Amino acid sequence: MAGSKFAYVRKFELPDVLLPSTFMVFRLDGHSFHRFSDEHGFVKPNDLRALQLMDHAAKSLMEEYKDIGLAFGESDEYSFLLRKSTALYNRRQAKIVSTLTSLFTSCYVFHWPRYFPDVPLRYPPSFDGRIVLYPSEQEVRDYFAWRQADTHINNLYNTAFWALIQQGGLTTTDAHAVLRGTVSKDKHEILFSRFGVNYDKLDPRYRKGSVFVRAETAEEPVDELSIKTDAASTQADVSGEALKKKKKGKVATQLELLHCDIIRDDFWEKYGHILRE
Amino acid sequence: MAGSKFAYVRKFELPDVLLPSTFMVFRLDGHSFHRFSDEHGFVKPNDLRALQLMDHAAKSLMEEYKDIGLAFGESDEYSFLLRKSTALYNRRQAKIVSTLTSLFTSCYVFHWPRYFPDVPLRYPPSFDGRIVLYPSEQEVRDYFAWRQADTHINNLYNTAFWALIQQGGLTTTDAHAVLRGTVSKDKHEILFSRFGVNYDKLDPRYRKGSVFVRAETAEEPVDELSIKTDAASTQADVSGEALKKKKKGKVATQLELLHCDIIRDDFWEKYGHILRE
Amino acid sequence: MAGSKFAYVRKFELPDVLLPSTFMVFRLDGHSFHRFSDEHGFVKPNDLRALQLMDHAAKSLMEEYKDIGLAFGESDEYSFLLRKSTALYNRRQAKIVSTLTSLFTSCYVFHWPRYFPDVPLRYPPSFDGRIVLYPSEQEVRDYFAWRQADTHINNLYNTAFWALIQQGGLTTTDAHAVLRGTVSKDKHEILFSRFGVNYDKLDPRYRKGSVFVRAETAEEPVDELSIKTDAASTQADVSGEALKKKKKGKVATQLELLHCDIIRDDFWEKYGHILRE
Amino acid sequence: MAGSKFAYVRKFELPDVLLPSTFMVFRLDGHSFHRFSDEHGFVKPNDLRALQLMDHAAKSLMEEYKDIGLAFGESDEYSFLLRKSTALYNRRQAKIVSTLTSLFTSCYVFHWPRYFPDVPLRYPPSFDGRIVLYPSEQEVRDYFAWRQADTHINNLYNTAFWALIQQGGLTTTDAHAVLRGTVSKDKHEILFSRFGVNYDKLDPRYRKGSVFVRAETAEEPVDELSIKTDAASTQADVSGEALKKKKKGKVATQLELLHCDIIRDDFWEKYGHILRE
Repeated sequence: MAGSKFAYVRKFELPDVLLPSTFMVFRLDGHSFHRFSDEHGFVKPNDLRALQLMDHAAKSLMEEYKDIGLAFGESDEYSFLLRKSTALYNRRQAKIVSTLTSLFTSCYVFHWPRYFPDVPLRYPPSFDGRIVLYPSEQEVRDYFAWRQADTHINNLYNTAFWALIQQGGLTTTDAHAVLRGTVSKDKHEILFSRFGVNYDKLDPRYRKGSVFVRAETAEEPVDELSIKTDAASTQADVSGEALKKKKKGKVATQLELLHCDIIRDDFWEKYGHILRE
Repeated sequence: MAGSKFAYVRKFELPDVLLPSTFMVFRLDGHSFHRFSDEHGFVKPNDLRALQLMDHAAKSLMEEYKDIGLAFGESDEYSFLLRKSTALYNRRQAKIVSTLTSLFTSCYVFHWPRYFPDVPLRYPPSFDGRIVLYPSEQEVRDYFAWRQADTHINNLYNTAFWALIQQGGLTTTDAHAVLRGTVSKDKHEILFSRFGVNYDKLDPRYRKGSVFVRAETAEEPVDELSIKTDAASTQADVSGEALKKKKKGKVATQLELLHCDIIRDDFWEKYGHILRE
Repeated sequence: MAGSKFAYVRKFELPDVLLPSTFMVFRLDGHSFHRFSDEHGFVKPNDLRALQLMDHAAKSLMEEYKDIGLAFGESDEYSFLLRKSTALYNRRQAKIVSTLTSLFTSCYVFHWPRYFPDVPLRYPPSFDGRIVLYPSEQEVRDYFAWRQADTHINNLYNTAFWALIQQGGLTTTDAHAVLRGTVSKDKHEILFSRFGVNYDKLDPRYRKGSVFVRAETAEEPVDELSIKTDAASTQADVSGEALKKKKKGKVATQLELLHCDIIRDDFWEKYGHILRE
Repeated sequence: MAGSKFAYVRKFELPDVLLPSTFMVFRLDGHSFHRFSDEHGFVKPNDLRALQLMDHAAKSLMEEYKDIGLAFGESDEYSFLLRKSTALYNRRQAKIVSTLTSLFTSCYVFHWPRYFPDVPLRYPPSFDGRIVLYPSEQEVRDYFAWRQADTHINNLYNTAFWALIQQGGLTTTDAHAVLRGTVSKDKHEILFSRFGVNYDKLDPRYRKGSVFVRAETAEEPVDELSIKTDAASTQADVSGEALKKKKKGKVATQLELLHCDIIRDDFWEKYGHILRE
């Protein structure tokens, strides 16, 4: 055969199987999103449209990949938990990382017009992805706690920072200077005394990030597509795989979008099944 | 700090640096593109629009990543050669694989309407990516020869197969049956004697695939955007990074789109500099 | 400096850190020991001297590397469990594998004359080693169960096989033929009815293999060297590291050599602390 | 079968194949040899017996593993070059690293009494090993140049250091102080003016290290064992593998021990075949 004398080059493709029975966390980050958000006029400190678009892409990923039981998003990043027994793509690292990053990116661009109907995309955005393995449940919990604690820290800072600029009239340099060295309590105080903002009353979406959990349902799946999210589903965004599986009527889980605390025990008492499947 | 007690989870992020001074070939493949091409009515055996869209995405990747010196595409796959000295993302595997796959996907969805103005995307397409390392020039040549030989084999088969169906009125089952066991010469003969098709006269784009080379130019880069491709560029598809670099006036290379033989020596005699940078 | 222009070659040394908080099992196997045992006249089916020498080398490894909590040996192989929190050599794979294999080999050759006073070593024996990671306690238990089940299967076969030859006068070919297709019960029966051997009464060392556990002791370590093994210690085989640590008087563990069942719960109820440190 | 329910633990053994067609350099280092050399009274700055023992072990490794074409040793370290096409153990990293380290260690302990007839081994010495991959000939040359440059730097320093102590009567602290900040020329001068030592006249073994090359021979291999080394061979140290191959009369190479410059072109002009096999 014509190609056979060259086929030896396949021997350079080395296996990259991930350790079995270990939790995989797949994390995506926006690539140069500082600039991307500027170019597309994202509202500061939080752009609801952009966050909902991220959630929509995350939800699509979970619809396609049933082995993702939990996801957490903030700003331009999203983390996904694959159950430790997953055999997705035979646990090949590059295959999983690239395919999941690709589908998320594709959904982000595909659904952009729904969330930004008046803002045309100026150029194609991209994301990077990575997989981190965690051997035990405690580490998985701590991973997600780490991301949510980060959300809190960043959002409190950004909320105070942009209040100083937008309401306080400061320059960005001055706003940074005011906040330098302040602790959490100081930022709460600045927001409250100078701008009448009770940080704890802000939309939990901004303070807690977005949490998708795959909840177990007792009943037969009448309609998998009526998932409880704040991003309305349309026929268009249902991937073929999801449709196919729906027809088989085998899926008995539902995706829930929450903006709750995932650091304390309550969450894990309710949704601990995610870790044990 | 709130997050510090959880930050230990970062220790599970292990390094994945690729061997220095080794050629990287990054290959993308469409995910479930058999179904995707059906759903979107791709012309058989070759859909010019779809191939041009692949080329456009590939070109965008090369504009953004200057360390890619050569690319080869056929059907729903594309291979990119990064020069062996590249320090892109410190040669971290997951970062490179995910970012390149993401940008390619993003470009594909972003530019879809230009090539398929009358065919709305029904769902977000995705790709998988991988990196294979090659220590020497000969292996790199053989890798690309392997892909082009594959293009030849597949396209000859598909051309004969679809002629039997579209012009010959056969079912797909019968068409496969006719071709079973035939060698290259037989398929040429079927095409010629039964359908008057001289395979060697078909558009080289289909027979040879698409080759992008980064050619060296002696002159100063007056306008990097007027690259020689059959996909017209517009302001919209120029990523920020490319714009920034252009302003610095440092880029003195041009991307050329070819549909030529890359197996024989001629090509490498002309463009061998790609391997030695 | 003279060497500096060449020092870039160090960049090709890539990190090979093993996933944190994961159990490491380090397994050694004799290299070409079929021939080695023939050349040195090992008694069949079990050579007590050779097994005691393996045990001695294993014990030395555990004296030197306190993070090994458990070891299991049979024939010419030995497995060692490193606790999941071990930071030995910063968990660098090649460093751990090579150093442990080297020390075991060195001890084997060093102590050879004690166990084979009349059989000079004809050539230097060698071993290969590997590390396998296990995320959870259950998998570690199952790993050791796997090895002990293997010991049982092999030893029962070998005991019957050599009885047929040594007492039954069969050739090796005939002995294999007799045993082909037999199950465990058949081999017991052959041993008992033809040779009067009650397999279950054989020395548990042969039936169960060798188990070293690091037991916790409440008292201060008066003399770490008087460890409970059947291989008498002498000053010579105490490595410097062990001596140094002994002088600091910090070590409060004792190595116990057992030939017991490690598949059932009893063992793990008693020694489960090994898994949780 | 008894073991079958546990056999799933084998799935945790992940492949660790090294990139094909790439040079492997395997480097060994003595583990805690500072202390080992003190305990066994090694002569300073160079102990001929210890170096010859290292050479003997290295030679044995090359006799056993024909894919090693070149070795370089100094002090308590040795580097071995495996040809880039080697299929040794299917290029599995842990297998190669552990087996080679093990055999070297075994030879070191086995042959100790020949080189140190009056110094009994006080405890088992050990080594660590690693493999570094190099894609091209130039990098392999530079690797070995790096090691030999290091030999020069270390040996010049040590020679001056021990002269200051042994002949000059200084303490180690004072000797270090004298040498602090000196360049190569200064150390030559100290040796010459204070101790009448012309460094360049010292035994090249100490200044250049030990180089083993596998030389091609035109004639039939009459007696492979009469290799040109300064460590006399005896029947005892010939491993079975070497014997077997010898009997087949297939080996047509000879090991040569040199103490020459391997940085300049001369060496590689003569022995360049090592890189191209």
